[in-house]
Amino acid sequence: MNPMTKEIENDFLQYIQKMTSFQEALNLLYWDMRTGAPKKGIQQRANVVGVLSSELFQMSVSDEMASFIASLSPHEEKLSPTVAKILEECKKEYHRNKKIPTQEYKEYIILQSKAENAWEQAKEESRFELFRPYLEKIVEYKKRFIEYWGYEGHPYNALLDLYEPGVTVDVLDPVFKKVRTFLVDFVSKIQKSPHKPKTDFLFEYFPKENQRLFSLQILKKMGYDLEAGRLDETIHPFEIALNPGDVRVTTHYNEQDFRVAIFGTIHEGGHAIYEQNIRHDLIGTPLCAGTSMGIHESQSLFYENFIGRHRHFWKKHFDLLKRYSNGQFDTVSIEEFYRAVNEVKPGLIRIEADECTYLLHIIIRYEIEKALFQDEIQVKDLPEIWNLKYKEYLGVSPQNDGEGVLQDIHWAGGDFGYFPSYGLGLMYAAQFYYSMKKDLPDLEGLLETGQLIKIKEWLNQNVHQYGKLKKPLEILMDATGEELNPEYFIRYIRNKYTDIYRLYSPENRHV
Amino acid sequence: MNPMTKEIENDFLQYIQKMTSFQEALNLLYWDMRTGAPKKGIQQRANVVGVLSSELFQMSVSDEMASFIASLSPHEEKLSPTVAKILEECKKEYHRNKKIPTQEYKEYIILQSKAENAWEQAKEESRFELFRPYLEKIVEYKKRFIEYWGYEGHPYNALLDLYEPGVTVDVLDPVFKKVRTFLVDFVSKIQKSPHKPKTDFLFEYFPKENQRLFSLQILKKMGYDLEAGRLDETIHPFEIALNPGDVRVTTHYNEQDFRVAIFGTIHEGGHAIYEQNIRHDLIGTPLCAGTSMGIHESQSLFYENFIGRHRHFWKKHFDLLKRYSNGQFDTVSIEEFYRAVNEVKPGLIRIEADECTYLLHIIIRYEIEKALFQDEIQVKDLPEIWNLKYKEYLGVSPQNDGEGVLQDIHWAGGDFGYFPSYGLGLMYAAQFYYSMKKDLPDLEGLLETGQLIKIKEWLNQNVHQYGKLKKPLEILMDATGEELNPEYFIRYIRNKYTDIYRLYSPENRHV
Repeated sequence: MNPMTKEIENDFLQYIQKMTSFQEALNLLYWDMRTGAPKKGIQQRANVVGVLSSELFQMSVSDEMASFIASLSPHEEKLSPTVAKILEECKKEYHRNKKIPTQEYKEYIILQSKAENAWEQAKEESRFELFRPYLEKIVEYKKRFIEYWGYEGHPYNALLDLYEPGVTVDVLDPVFKKVRTFLVDFVSKIQKSPHKPKTDFLFEYFPKENQRLFSLQILKKMGYDLEAGRLDETIHPFEIALNPGDVRVTTHYNEQDFRVAIFGTIHEGGHAIYEQNIRHDLIGTPLCAGTSMGIHESQSLFYENFIGRHRHFWKKHFDLLKRYSNGQFDTVSIEEFYRAVNEVKPGLIRIEADECTYLLHIIIRYEIEKALFQDEIQVKDLPEIWNLKYKEYLGVSPQNDGEGVLQDIHWAGGDFGYFPSYGLGLMYAAQFYYSMKKDLPDLEGLLETGQLIKIKEWLNQNVHQYGKLKKPLEILMDATGEELNPEYFIRYIRNKYTDIYRLYSPENRHV
Repeated sequence: MNPMTKEIENDFLQYIQKMTSFQEALNLLYWDMRTGAPKKGIQQRANVVGVLSSELFQMSVSDEMASFIASLSPHEEKLSPTVAKILEECKKEYHRNKKIPTQEYKEYIILQSKAENAWEQAKEESRFELFRPYLEKIVEYKKRFIEYWGYEGHPYNALLDLYEPGVTVDVLDPVFKKVRTFLVDFVSKIQKSPHKPKTDFLFEYFPKENQRLFSLQILKKMGYDLEAGRLDETIHPFEIALNPGDVRVTTHYNEQDFRVAIFGTIHEGGHAIYEQNIRHDLIGTPLCAGTSMGIHESQSLFYENFIGRHRHFWKKHFDLLKRYSNGQFDTVSIEEFYRAVNEVKPGLIRIEADECTYLLHIIIRYEIEKALFQDEIQVKDLPEIWNLKYKEYLGVSPQNDGEGVLQDIHWAGGDFGYFPSYGLGLMYAAQFYYSMKKDLPDLEGLLETGQLIKIKEWLNQNVHQYGKLKKPLEILMDATGEELNPEYFIRYIRNKYTDIYRLYSPENRHV
């Protein structure tokens, strides 16, 4: 590389650092709004967020950015692997943002905000018709965007690429079909089992402050670094990374259902441990973040379900929970508790679903979105199709659109292609789980003796450290030696719930 | 104004809004660092602050700003009064920042940071010599800056103008001389009084959480709007305004000296009430801030001393304090308590000084700084002159430079000209106090019945609402009908402490 190019590279990295600085400021502004910013300042705060966001967007499509891309791309093979990856990310974003005519994008942003308002009202009144005209326009815009961006194969691939680069309809179709077939059958068996867990003790009073103290204990044991993070209260819990030395977790407390905070904190803690352990040399670059929505979700779900709802995790921690609780578990055995927190209950609402039925909620949305973007169905058909699929896959029927097709905000925001990532997260997590068990054969022993740190180390090594240096399916292949394979998820669910609901076939049964 | 100019005006206001947005983000980043940001994120956070600050600085001296100034200045009389004021502020800052050669300014910023480190070490080791070479360079730079900026009269005026526009050496010299003469004599009389307040009960255990709850009660009673603010804990208390709807107070708790938190919170609350009550049409402009350091300090000191240390304030609130305290005041009368929190004790440390001796600390610094910038003394002479003046005005002698000339950080940061603002704050406050008493003759009655809101309304009306629309001496003139007049401060101190220390001349004494 000639000295001239070196100089451009340095300028580029400085430009990038400015962008990540704006992003860190934005993240703090967001966190603060959700955890305790005085309400009378929110209006002006929204202006501040608007100014910084627009600045960041402008920088991603500026002439300066174009000139960095033009100057550095011809020398790509001479750049360090990290700088080459940063350039790739910037290029991708540049083209994605630049291909949409400015005026059209502005109109879309305004529409988005109107659509979200309309959705909110429509959901409240359970009237899809109020939302329909907005959703139709959103879909029209998105279809045009897809044409601007271009795609290979199915048009829906352009949307999947936004959240899970490398994952296409060709990857998902066979996987989701297999999982769906298994789950529909398996969940119906569970439904018929006479061995239902007892759950009444889950809903007794558990003081908020004690929930907080217990959650903090568990976060520490998981290896969440409290000198590089903090736990705060909010309405809708989230994790947010300012930089790897400052990754914050928020949670919500319900004194009549401690599961909300405890499993919620473990979930967000999983996200946070990911961000805290990204290689520090990536700080100040766009690579210093989880590589995709799906891999991120795999980490939170891994901790929440594969660890936090594991029998051996509670063998170690049930006594601690008892000490913080209000006495409601005094006559409950570990086994009863374990079964209670793993209750399977097909329902209408995605965010309340258990790990066993969750993927069916996702698959319904995936099938609908794909059909919508292939012009096989229209927006006006959505409520009917929605209700049919819920009946068919989960055996439940919404009483109204509020608890049906209107339940999620995603479509109002134009976030089509996002839902599959949630489902991928579960399947990635299962695949990691069995791969981890090969490296740590006594995983149950580690859980029972509280050595959660070994688990974190495995994830650090195989997943966290890379940030966006590897794409999601690369991470999966390198960590597990395989492509995406839904058999792991199926095996996990079958083993776990056959046991919990005593679904052993007669010949396998040991009484 | 022609349509073209109108368009430039709009662009200018948008540019300004971008600057104030960056400033709000910076203020939040700062607040967060001081109230609970995880320590491992601080290094990257410092980069973020650096990027945003430098962006803000660049915007203040950009070609774009130059062009706004050039296009709008000729039409100044056609601009609205608010826009004209904004332009004036921007011009002032543009010239101040632009007149210093870029390279020299960069060197100065680096020197500043080195000087602060050197000061810290020098203070710790009480060795002025370690700090001297840095301070000499800082003074050299500042003297050059003064030449770049230009000044009328005394060169020190250029520095005063940074913090208290309109206040010059000609204003301060006679005022400080009069106050000094009075105080030196009066404090020595107090020292000789046999009627010293008893203070032991001030230093008994007072639980932190109770201090917090009491402080919150008082803040509310003062009229601090908790929906437009919040109270957090920090090491060195401060108030910070993000916008008038979000003005935050921080405090520090000492369980063996409740005065730190209680009077500290009242002090910062005074600053905060100022910022919360600036006219909302100034939001998003540089006028939406306190008009000067001195007027700001007048508001905090007004609440802390004139209200918070007033006999009638405690007539109303002593019972409440007792309820939150640990029983230490059960046998203390209101009068004993009032005298205790108004104890006068000449000391070495400015930030620990009472309202009676505080101005002497300020006057010493003023006299020294003025002499330094008029080349009457050299940096090397500072410790000796410092100690002589402390002996002469306050009757105390530092044992070492750590508790003497090295006690404040200001000079290490180059903040010469700042100290007088603190002193002006006290004198402004006294002048406001007597003016308020004309409008609210039963001020004592209001205090005794807890109607603090009337006091806030007077300050809102006469001081707060204007932000930077009026200069400090304009505020003073409009609110009190007079120029700066130190007689009010002298009268206030004489009346209050003659009573507390029973210094009545025999003929006036009523036993």
